[in-house]
Amino acid sequence: MKLLIGNKNYSSWSMRPWVLLKAFGIPFEEVKLRFDFTPDSAFYRALQPVTPTAKVPVLVEDDGFAVWDTLAITEALADMHPEHAIWPRDARQRARARSLCAEMHAGFGKLRGLCPMNIDADLHEVGAKLLSSEPGLRADLARMDTLWNEALAASGGPFLFGAFGAADAYFAPVVMRVTRYGLPLSEQAAAYAQAIEQHPAVAAWVKDAMAEQDFLDFEEPYRQKA
Amino acid sequence: MKLLIGNKNYSSWSMRPWVLLKAFGIPFEEVKLRFDFTPDSAFYRALQPVTPTAKVPVLVEDDGFAVWDTLAITEALADMHPEHAIWPRDARQRARARSLCAEMHAGFGKLRGLCPMNIDADLHEVGAKLLSSEPGLRADLARMDTLWNEALAASGGPFLFGAFGAADAYFAPVVMRVTRYGLPLSEQAAAYAQAIEQHPAVAAWVKDAMAEQDFLDFEEPYRQKA
Repeated sequence: MKLLIGNKNYSSWSMRPWVLLKAFGIPFEEVKLRFDFTPDSAFYRALQPVTPTAKVPVLVEDDGFAVWDTLAITEALADMHPEHAIWPRDARQRARARSLCAEMHAGFGKLRGLCPMNIDADLHEVGAKLLSSEPGLRADLARMDTLWNEALAASGGPFLFGAFGAADAYFAPVVMRVTRYGLPLSEQAAAYAQAIEQHPAVAAWVKDAMAEQDFLDFEEPYRQKA
Repeated sequence: MKLLIGNKNYSSWSMRPWVLLKAFGIPFEEVKLRFDFTPDSAFYRALQPVTPTAKVPVLVEDDGFAVWDTLAITEALADMHPEHAIWPRDARQRARARSLCAEMHAGFGKLRGLCPMNIDADLHEVGAKLLSSEPGLRADLARMDTLWNEALAASGGPFLFGAFGAADAYFAPVVMRVTRYGLPLSEQAAAYAQAIEQHPAVAAWVKDAMAEQDFLDFEEPYRQKA
């Protein structure tokens, strides 16, 4: 099984299934496709035969069957590996975990748009400016904090539904944004962000991202060129 | 079990789980909340105690437990009702169905943004103008047509994965857009759109939507006021 991903420093969608696979020790081959969104790039030439959406991540089974989109990949992994509690075992906790992931999947537009993931960067000053000028970002952050607090209060933590699972993999890139842009969190949400950063699967991705050192202008709206 | 929905003429997200529940004969109580996005509206006052996102649709179980977001509602219904093939029984067909729904969930931005659902309206002239001026809309439509054709060719139809299921409920509001705006489809895609329109659960929603006659300015970017 292969997982096709983008740049580790930038590709927040790729990070989700990669972290999930690592966290549960599911073997896979990582295939990194360097971001290049110009027509007929190597990125598109590699992706187009595999998936009609030409987006990463894609899970590709040994015979070439492709599963695209992070939510569908997560569900496929849960289907393939019933021995792992990828979703919570309890039906209501599972339903709630799926609500939170689906909410992230189609929502939090300001947080995602204004604070693109950039693991290598220190963007505290940018974050402070954005936070003061963008009410939508403040609203997204407040919702995120509440969402985490409610789930953690119900489960007792340290992860959203107790043990590390799909919902945590889903929010791991958000933790990257919050910490790199220095966005303020409540005490319990900050403790959760720290637990995510310290999880071995997340730490492994971050280490790779930091070692990558492949900076792309179109992914760097805030940092000066060297 | 209650399903909280918005206006039937406009609420494409509400249409999905409603049609799914009806198609499988799962009993539920419909609670319609008239769209009103002004602060402290009856719409928000009804939703806020139920769901933190204050969006429809929401599935509310008898003791008040809420499941929000269409994808999470679909998964919850599949969990609750293993006797129904809400997702295809075959693991790969199921994975593919989930890829298509997830792609719809976060994608097709131009089709969704430029052609908001308005079941009551004849917007053929608007559709023709948009199609000529908006390359992004043409790209969305082409992707949709290919996606339908591939699934129908693999399953043999008449629905995307053979019998009517979650993926069809997911695309039913898209069929409403395509037909109301008169967007051109390939022959096989057009036959699929017709099968969707004729499905009893879809026809029941459309009948209610046509009877609703509750037109809201902010949902009517294209029709003249009376």
